[in-house]
Amino acid sequence: MLGHIARSLGRPKLLQSSLHSIRPVSMMPLWPLSSQPRDFSQPNSTWSPEMCKVYNHYNALCDTDTENGEKKRVPWRKLPSYNRSIKYATGGIHLSKMIKAQARLFTRNFKEQGATFEYVVFVNKEEKRCVCVFQAGHLLEGAPGYVHGGAIATMIDTVTGTLAGFLSGPIMTANLNINYRNPMPLGSVVLIHSALDQIERKKQYITCKVTSTDESKLYTEATALFVAISVDHLFGSQN
Amino acid sequence: MLGHIARSLGRPKLLQSSLHSIRPVSMMPLWPLSSQPRDFSQPNSTWSPEMCKVYNHYNALCDTDTENGEKKRVPWRKLPSYNRSIKYATGGIHLSKMIKAQARLFTRNFKEQGATFEYVVFVNKEEKRCVCVFQAGHLLEGAPGYVHGGAIATMIDTVTGTLAGFLSGPIMTANLNINYRNPMPLGSVVLIHSALDQIERKKQYITCKVTSTDESKLYTEATALFVAISVDHLFGSQN
Repeated sequence: MLGHIARSLGRPKLLQSSLHSIRPVSMMPLWPLSSQPRDFSQPNSTWSPEMCKVYNHYNALCDTDTENGEKKRVPWRKLPSYNRSIKYATGGIHLSKMIKAQARLFTRNFKEQGATFEYVVFVNKEEKRCVCVFQAGHLLEGAPGYVHGGAIATMIDTVTGTLAGFLSGPIMTANLNINYRNPMPLGSVVLIHSALDQIERKKQYITCKVTSTDESKLYTEATALFVAISVDHLFGSQN
Repeated sequence: MLGHIARSLGRPKLLQSSLHSIRPVSMMPLWPLSSQPRDFSQPNSTWSPEMCKVYNHYNALCDTDTENGEKKRVPWRKLPSYNRSIKYATGGIHLSKMIKAQARLFTRNFKEQGATFEYVVFVNKEEKRCVCVFQAGHLLEGAPGYVHGGAIATMIDTVTGTLAGFLSGPIMTANLNINYRNPMPLGSVVLIHSALDQIERKKQYITCKVTSTDESKLYTEATALFVAISVDHLFGSQN
């Protein structure tokens, strides 16, 4: 819950910093934690050839410079991904200052590259959908040799919440309904497809499916419900 | 999915070693990884007074020695919890030997105590239910100051799967349906109550709710469906 509220806080109307901002790094001068936060969704040496291939495919669909040096307008955008929450968030009423300072995003809390969640999200605003390329590391084990159902649920919450936050601003997860169709071996590279189903006032219904990179094999299907919230829920009202 | 198959593999009819064995450490002489695997569900210095208090409450309900030096038969049992899968599991067909050797259970993959999932599960066989005491560390963040929805889903999958595996042997998660009612601050200590709802042939329906330790506040409600599988799904058939 509340897993993705901060993703859209980077929008100009709200705040200049975010957990999962939708804005490129170069547009975040007020990031409070360092002058140049690390974007964890950049390729690294632990990415398999399959992961790199799919990344390159979607990356090629994103903004590119034209011959005039200007950005070509395309519907796809790669979202950066950081590992820290914003510095001045008050958090829960039971939260100590120590915990606040040390807190890290669950999916980016591991220093060792390739060990847990390697992923990058590409979003298509026109079609109201996104695609995540996810490589499951060896520390995500559930049954021997397979990815833990909770790790898959975590990625589904992350990707559907990223889309919901991108489309509507701060949201909280209200429901996740996940059907596990096939076990996912550790080390797999998969696509997590997420699309807006419908909006009813403050409610966003999102669909999700997890497939092999060639989309021939279905691992998981899910629906998610997010509710738009006021940013006041996060900042100041509980301190 | 498959997140809990191995929990019941410690039963005599199957194998002598397990991921989440239901047998006490002293009854696992054939554990293949070390002579004395660490039980991660033992109290440590990062447990808050609230965590310790609830642990002591449920621990007092478990097996105790009588004046004759024999075990008193009671319905409650504390389950140990390890961080490695069994050594000879073959895992998925794409699994490299390196990944196999380095793989760790998702909920026990962090060396730093208190940083992520601190939990212990007590099971009541007669009443077909269990209670997990869970303390959420600072590296489980979703929205600023709050636990990630995926981390809560992970614990729900873990606890409901532990109960299903305890009651029926090897199972795989087929469905998780999770309603998030209130955000959970980082550092919270909560109870995760899980109970068998019904069994239909190979299907087990489990209910789950996550509450404050005094049960006055409801954080999350969920249902889970598990399907009994053959142990052949895990061992040997894919190598």
